[in-house]
Amino acid sequence: MTDQHLLLGTCDYPEHVPRDRWETYAKQQKELGLTFIRIAEFAWSRMEPRQGEYNWKWLDDAVEAYHAEGLKVVLCTPTPTPPAWLVRQHPEILPYDREGRVRDFGSRRHYDFASPVYREHSRRITRAMAERYGQHPAVVGWQTDNEFGCHDTGRSFGGASAEAFPVWLKQKYGTLDALNTAWGNVFWSMEYTDWGQIKPPNLTVTETNPSHVLDFYRFASTMIARFQEEQIVILRELSPGRFITHNFMIFETGFDHYQVARGLDFVTWDNYPLGMLEFFAPPGHGEALKTHFARTGHPDLISFNHDLYRGLLGGQEALGREGKDTPSGFWVMEQQCGQVNWAPFNPLPADGTVQLWTAQAWAHGADVVSYFRWRAATMAQEVMHSGLLRHDETPDRGFHEVKELEQAQFPVGTVPARVALLHDYESLWLYDQQKHAQSLSYWAQTLAYYSALRALGVDVDVVHADADLSGYAVAVAPAITLVSAERAAHWERAVQGGVKLVCGPRTAFRTPGGETWAEGQFGPLSALVGAKLLQYDSLRPGLSQKVSGNGKEFEAVTWAESYRLNGAEALYKYVGGPLDGQSAAIRNGNVTVIGAHSPELISAVLDKVLTGAGVDTTPLPEGVRISRRSGRTLVQNWNLEAVEWQEQQLPGVSFQFLDGI
Amino acid sequence: MTDQHLLLGTCDYPEHVPRDRWETYAKQQKELGLTFIRIAEFAWSRMEPRQGEYNWKWLDDAVEAYHAEGLKVVLCTPTPTPPAWLVRQHPEILPYDREGRVRDFGSRRHYDFASPVYREHSRRITRAMAERYGQHPAVVGWQTDNEFGCHDTGRSFGGASAEAFPVWLKQKYGTLDALNTAWGNVFWSMEYTDWGQIKPPNLTVTETNPSHVLDFYRFASTMIARFQEEQIVILRELSPGRFITHNFMIFETGFDHYQVARGLDFVTWDNYPLGMLEFFAPPGHGEALKTHFARTGHPDLISFNHDLYRGLLGGQEALGREGKDTPSGFWVMEQQCGQVNWAPFNPLPADGTVQLWTAQAWAHGADVVSYFRWRAATMAQEVMHSGLLRHDETPDRGFHEVKELEQAQFPVGTVPARVALLHDYESLWLYDQQKHAQSLSYWAQTLAYYSALRALGVDVDVVHADADLSGYAVAVAPAITLVSAERAAHWERAVQGGVKLVCGPRTAFRTPGGETWAEGQFGPLSALVGAKLLQYDSLRPGLSQKVSGNGKEFEAVTWAESYRLNGAEALYKYVGGPLDGQSAAIRNGNVTVIGAHSPELISAVLDKVLTGAGVDTTPLPEGVRISRRSGRTLVQNWNLEAVEWQEQQLPGVSFQFLDGI
Amino acid sequence: MTDQHLLLGTCDYPEHVPRDRWETYAKQQKELGLTFIRIAEFAWSRMEPRQGEYNWKWLDDAVEAYHAEGLKVVLCTPTPTPPAWLVRQHPEILPYDREGRVRDFGSRRHYDFASPVYREHSRRITRAMAERYGQHPAVVGWQTDNEFGCHDTGRSFGGASAEAFPVWLKQKYGTLDALNTAWGNVFWSMEYTDWGQIKPPNLTVTETNPSHVLDFYRFASTMIARFQEEQIVILRELSPGRFITHNFMIFETGFDHYQVARGLDFVTWDNYPLGMLEFFAPPGHGEALKTHFARTGHPDLISFNHDLYRGLLGGQEALGREGKDTPSGFWVMEQQCGQVNWAPFNPLPADGTVQLWTAQAWAHGADVVSYFRWRAATMAQEVMHSGLLRHDETPDRGFHEVKELEQAQFPVGTVPARVALLHDYESLWLYDQQKHAQSLSYWAQTLAYYSALRALGVDVDVVHADADLSGYAVAVAPAITLVSAERAAHWERAVQGGVKLVCGPRTAFRTPGGETWAEGQFGPLSALVGAKLLQYDSLRPGLSQKVSGNGKEFEAVTWAESYRLNGAEALYKYVGGPLDGQSAAIRNGNVTVIGAHSPELISAVLDKVLTGAGVDTTPLPEGVRISRRSGRTLVQNWNLEAVEWQEQQLPGVSFQFLDGI
Repeated sequence: MTDQHLLLGTCDYPEHVPRDRWETYAKQQKELGLTFIRIAEFAWSRMEPRQGEYNWKWLDDAVEAYHAEGLKVVLCTPTPTPPAWLVRQHPEILPYDREGRVRDFGSRRHYDFASPVYREHSRRITRAMAERYGQHPAVVGWQTDNEFGCHDTGRSFGGASAEAFPVWLKQKYGTLDALNTAWGNVFWSMEYTDWGQIKPPNLTVTETNPSHVLDFYRFASTMIARFQEEQIVILRELSPGRFITHNFMIFETGFDHYQVARGLDFVTWDNYPLGMLEFFAPPGHGEALKTHFARTGHPDLISFNHDLYRGLLGGQEALGREGKDTPSGFWVMEQQCGQVNWAPFNPLPADGTVQLWTAQAWAHGADVVSYFRWRAATMAQEVMHSGLLRHDETPDRGFHEVKELEQAQFPVGTVPARVALLHDYESLWLYDQQKHAQSLSYWAQTLAYYSALRALGVDVDVVHADADLSGYAVAVAPAITLVSAERAAHWERAVQGGVKLVCGPRTAFRTPGGETWAEGQFGPLSALVGAKLLQYDSLRPGLSQKVSGNGKEFEAVTWAESYRLNGAEALYKYVGGPLDGQSAAIRNGNVTVIGAHSPELISAVLDKVLTGAGVDTTPLPEGVRISRRSGRTLVQNWNLEAVEWQEQQLPGVSFQFLDGI
Repeated sequence: MTDQHLLLGTCDYPEHVPRDRWETYAKQQKELGLTFIRIAEFAWSRMEPRQGEYNWKWLDDAVEAYHAEGLKVVLCTPTPTPPAWLVRQHPEILPYDREGRVRDFGSRRHYDFASPVYREHSRRITRAMAERYGQHPAVVGWQTDNEFGCHDTGRSFGGASAEAFPVWLKQKYGTLDALNTAWGNVFWSMEYTDWGQIKPPNLTVTETNPSHVLDFYRFASTMIARFQEEQIVILRELSPGRFITHNFMIFETGFDHYQVARGLDFVTWDNYPLGMLEFFAPPGHGEALKTHFARTGHPDLISFNHDLYRGLLGGQEALGREGKDTPSGFWVMEQQCGQVNWAPFNPLPADGTVQLWTAQAWAHGADVVSYFRWRAATMAQEVMHSGLLRHDETPDRGFHEVKELEQAQFPVGTVPARVALLHDYESLWLYDQQKHAQSLSYWAQTLAYYSALRALGVDVDVVHADADLSGYAVAVAPAITLVSAERAAHWERAVQGGVKLVCGPRTAFRTPGGETWAEGQFGPLSALVGAKLLQYDSLRPGLSQKVSGNGKEFEAVTWAESYRLNGAEALYKYVGGPLDGQSAAIRNGNVTVIGAHSPELISAVLDKVLTGAGVDTTPLPEGVRISRRSGRTLVQNWNLEAVEWQEQQLPGVSFQFLDGI
Repeated sequence: MTDQHLLLGTCDYPEHVPRDRWETYAKQQKELGLTFIRIAEFAWSRMEPRQGEYNWKWLDDAVEAYHAEGLKVVLCTPTPTPPAWLVRQHPEILPYDREGRVRDFGSRRHYDFASPVYREHSRRITRAMAERYGQHPAVVGWQTDNEFGCHDTGRSFGGASAEAFPVWLKQKYGTLDALNTAWGNVFWSMEYTDWGQIKPPNLTVTETNPSHVLDFYRFASTMIARFQEEQIVILRELSPGRFITHNFMIFETGFDHYQVARGLDFVTWDNYPLGMLEFFAPPGHGEALKTHFARTGHPDLISFNHDLYRGLLGGQEALGREGKDTPSGFWVMEQQCGQVNWAPFNPLPADGTVQLWTAQAWAHGADVVSYFRWRAATMAQEVMHSGLLRHDETPDRGFHEVKELEQAQFPVGTVPARVALLHDYESLWLYDQQKHAQSLSYWAQTLAYYSALRALGVDVDVVHADADLSGYAVAVAPAITLVSAERAAHWERAVQGGVKLVCGPRTAFRTPGGETWAEGQFGPLSALVGAKLLQYDSLRPGLSQKVSGNGKEFEAVTWAESYRLNGAEALYKYVGGPLDGQSAAIRNGNVTVIGAHSPELISAVLDKVLTGAGVDTTPLPEGVRISRRSGRTLVQNWNLEAVEWQEQQLPGVSFQFLDGI
């Protein structure tokens, strides 16, 4: 593997530009050092202008133009954009929003994954494309659809989904008694006597039963998985030897990514560091942090997604790039190479950022980085989004950065993480439905732990909560609020195997059905933790709770949990307030629980556990990060200003290798 | 009465826990010193799993379990939660929200009070329950439904209500000419020529006619009253000797509580001090005040509701607790005993708060305080709401406070208020429709006066604007903007009888039809006030208006009114600005009007009037309050810190008796 | 013309008050010095209580009452308020909002301009009124409808408009190929194959195609123009010699005002300085500025609208007041004379403000100022809006100011502007759809240039982007983002003719179809500008970009554009950041472009250009403004405090003539 290195690509839209540009663009792309070209995800109306009337000529030409330059083509199924003739003939494929309104034609993603009619058309167009291009020598792989869940389309709250939901429930529960019990429907007389009475969990008078919501989210996720699986089956049949992937999104929560990734060869995701900062900046820092990183993005927000998608297929051996064996491979299918157009403010990236983002992607396991998009669109919704070329076809700033990037310095290889951070979409769904403290979400709590690890210079694998943990020194479960008996047993085995486990607040508060454990938190995990929940406290801004221990003081904000010890020892205790004298962080052998939400406390506890587990930590200044891959250590400075670190001067917005560390 | 004292209770949900817990819980409840258990308000689907198939066995057992311990049961009609079989068979019972959407099954309160179909089922289930339990020795009383108006369900903007509204209007007005005139429909050509043309006042292009809205609110309130009256009639018939009550809510404005209380034996309300603080904290203090009182709640927000509900049935002799004569009796049917789950942040109460809340409730006239709920729910929407027992059935913090509370120190008796604060839901509806200064509402203006009185150590009766005022030294009308000729005459008689009247701004601005008086403010009250409105001014944040008088200066914020004197004298005048030199507060004999919204000015004027009326005032520090009942004086410190007051040290979060004062 | 001077009027509603007041009011109006009375715009239900049953008696009497006093009547068509009988019989006339909901009867403007049924009734009632009053000696003119577009009613997103939109598109494009190409529908497979597939651009999953939106806005504007044109044709026929006008609104964007004004004799607008301040205060100054001008309004916000409406009919010779020749004439049809009722806060105007507003209106070209309204309404939606008389019929503060105003000091004549500010609703629609920096809108950018000019003491004509520019020394195009080849050629001719052109950022970024120029900004204007766009940058609050030149430093906020020079020279350059060293403001002969959004830079550049063009500038303190008309110079101080200026003391809230300047 070591003779391979990071490769680059771009997303191109031949159908958006005049025919006479295609060969020129392909030539320029090749000259720029690109390898892969992704195309056609929104081109249904050009492939099939009217039902059954296929027009392949233009796509033949386009593929040929890339092929002529030796570029490798990633083809997409065009299902994110059902054309007008299909939608108007079959309006029943349209999805419904939470407000009960039909989401209409006129942009993209206007379909319901559960629609049998749409499923049929999805299979039909997939088959037609695969028959035409499945064995074309230029075509090296496929992307299914595009960005499942984008624009809150992971779920439809009416129409086809409303019809399919009770059917799915009946398959799951068998009887209504089982469902009523599982959901706790007795609570507000919500018991059903007929499957047909059950609807999606929207437009209720007040909050819907979280168990009802949880199952609806599971149902919707399953619909996406089935929708995609149908395309995969056809592509496997008709396009042998080509990889199949999907481009996932930043912090998307509309479906279980682990479920939907199953069946893919490897996963890809779309990395927009500046746009995402406006929406996902860690709470508590607020506007100042957004301004500080406005031109670079926040390193941890980005790398969390890299680490998440690197681990999405878990232990499964990925088919990898071009059908070759790339064990940990994932791609960045779309990467910002200039300003985006969809955030409240869309600044220019700082000089050097496109290279920094690319280097970081590699360091976190990406085998390919593909820039969005080749030329800035001159029409329609995204005219203010940049590309490698400007509207006028001159090379934009990102183009020059890509041109100057030496790809060979980024050898493909392994990310040597000894720390696993556990993640689970069902815990996320439960947590965020009932946050109890509005400013703390599942992502925010998870990122607090992730950022603490990164600031200690530690490499992290984000893995599913049920993933194999053998081989890890430390496993961190920041917010796994759903812990089944099976999950508890799995963790217990890992701990017995020597893994040190660190849990955040709310761990094991909820059952797989979305209730709470009748025996209280930590439910089936209680013995392992050696404690039970005593209190949880939700702290409004301005209200905090002191924590003390080891001669140090910390301040818990937003959330504070305490425990009754039953074998565990207290590491830190609360001082003052309603939790005075109670445990804030506890340890039971190899298991540590941090109940107080305090970034500094989290860092102190993690540092101790890591060191104890033989994982070296390197405290890093703000905006400085180190990432390791293939035996190389990449030091990054995400600040606009130079930073003095370990007697070195790190220039602003820069990366360098520090292979001696 | 003096041998009676405050009694305690809890809200329990046997249907939410395994059958084998019932006897244990009843025993624990008894041991804790509880007297009353409220049950069954959400249990329709268990009483009648399918239409006409009643299942009483479980409820028989539950009632028996309480009875065996000598606990007294308050049974509820289960109408807040029509079951799925009823809703899906009769979707026409569902209510509509302001946006025109059906509010669907899946939580609670999904019905339209005006639905004849639902009315029939409401009577049927009430009759069935009353037949079964109406004379059970353990059953001492009934609660109708639960929390009318919760989740904005006081009004339905379509369906059955839309059909019933014109019918109600026709009964009220007789002719369309009368209605068109009363509503001033000529204003924007809004005159109707057929009753069927009239719809609820939603989804109009811009603001709806306030007279239209006012009558729709009256109509909706009447529907609730009629709905409840039908249940009362059945319960009176089948459950003789038992009381009938309803549990009202904090600051709920969806109906006229005086109208709906009529026919009840006494009223109860649901007291959630911490949750309500986040939503109803007095404006102008903002976040700092919310943080200061985050763990105790604000004393005045709570006691205002106590004082309101104590006076809801007015002069009517209440049947009282257990059918006995309790003159001023009301209950707190649900009281927070740990954190709630429905505010943006849900902190733990400070140590001692559950006792402080209970003592305060008693001091303001409560005969019973019943805690919500016995055991924290392990399923569905409220899993994060605390109970006296935790999820794991261990006693939570509130349990211990209840256990240590000596009930006998709280003798049942009279609250000796000499000050009446006048309140009227129709004034509220008119005020809040057209606030003119967005940050000042009816409640905010009313609470400014109420808080000023409490901070002067004065006990207050909140009474209807048309209540008998004889016996009061002072009547304060903070925001009674609707003053009819009858109301004016009533107040005039009271003043002639020696009551000193203090009015806030906007008093007597509006007619009973929702128009303004053609002769201007104060309409029929003009002679009594001895003045007419000159100007009103709405002040954005940052803009204020100086007021001066008696050698002191004040600052009016948000609102400033001035008057042309016609017999009255100026107490305070405006200095500078467009009102320069005009009257800000005036007096005409026993009638005083304060036109400037300034907490300090309000306090100064009230202090003077109270003293002049022989009501002693005792200025209190922030968070310290005194309340009197049954000859005892309860001093409360709501601050977390100790306060030095009158040479005493009041510990943080505490109460003590000061019977010498 | 010089013997003519400003005349005054009021808006009156005889149908809102008892019959016995009419003669009294008319007498009082005459005595106050008023000339014009506008009536009847909301009185349909009184003119035609049931379909076909006309009742003219009351209106005959009202007109006669004014006539008897020699007052001149402006009659309105009552179409803003279709009566209940019409709406309930023909619900298909109701409009739809963006959320897909029918906007119902119960307030005003509940109709769809595209409805053939409503058009028929509009013509019918117009004809009936015109037949009755068209030649009445008191009637001097007509107002069509009232405030087109108010309450976001310029567009209906369903019903009649949804049906008419594809028809209009077919007329415009002829073929679907042409439409698909023009809209760039290939972008997301949005190509249509049938006209019937096209709907209004709402309720799509995400952002709608801006070209689709742009055409929908054009369509909706055309519907308004046609609706009005039908009324004009009838009025011209039946009411010869009377003027026809419409009262436009503050910063309304729901239609192309230039298009809708065509066919009118002159335009009027409704001036509410205090209400508008809360909604339209220039961004970047925020709350402090709103508070500073809370009692006067901001002079530039007001005068911009005066200057806009003065130029709305462009070179067309206006028929003018009473059918006489008034070259630049426009009216203020409604002017605030006390507090309004529709802003979040509605303060009293400062003493003198009603006179100041009137003087300003005159100075900017108004021939008539008409106050809204005569007596404050005592019923319905606007009871908290002031009038010249209070509710109780006593003269309010504004009345006294009007009484004391000497009308003869305001001679009718010409505003001698040598600077044209270019404006275009299509550019506005495109700009605001894709702002890219959420805090900067078309209006905000335009006002930054306008305010800079006013603060330099310069008179400005706001004219259409395609208006004849000959005669102007300087033309400023702050935000004309849509520049067609024709517009570019037109500007080029103007520049060749000696006009100095100054452009703001985003100029000529978009094509008439709503795309971007494939050759990039400045598209067809590139040669004239001598440069091409290099980068644009969107700056979040807290992020700024330094600009330097001529020994001065500036700070760009929110937006920064840079250019590649191709003949032009750099006037200012960026320092630091991603634009370091690039051009921030450039000049190519008589054409200057300012790419950095910095009020100070804009002022510096404009000052230089103006001086170079022979336009004298006079830097003014904040809140002080000078305006010239008919050879007189009006100095205004809009601050509450006195200001020292040019060795004079300007009292707070005052105006004076400075004819020597």
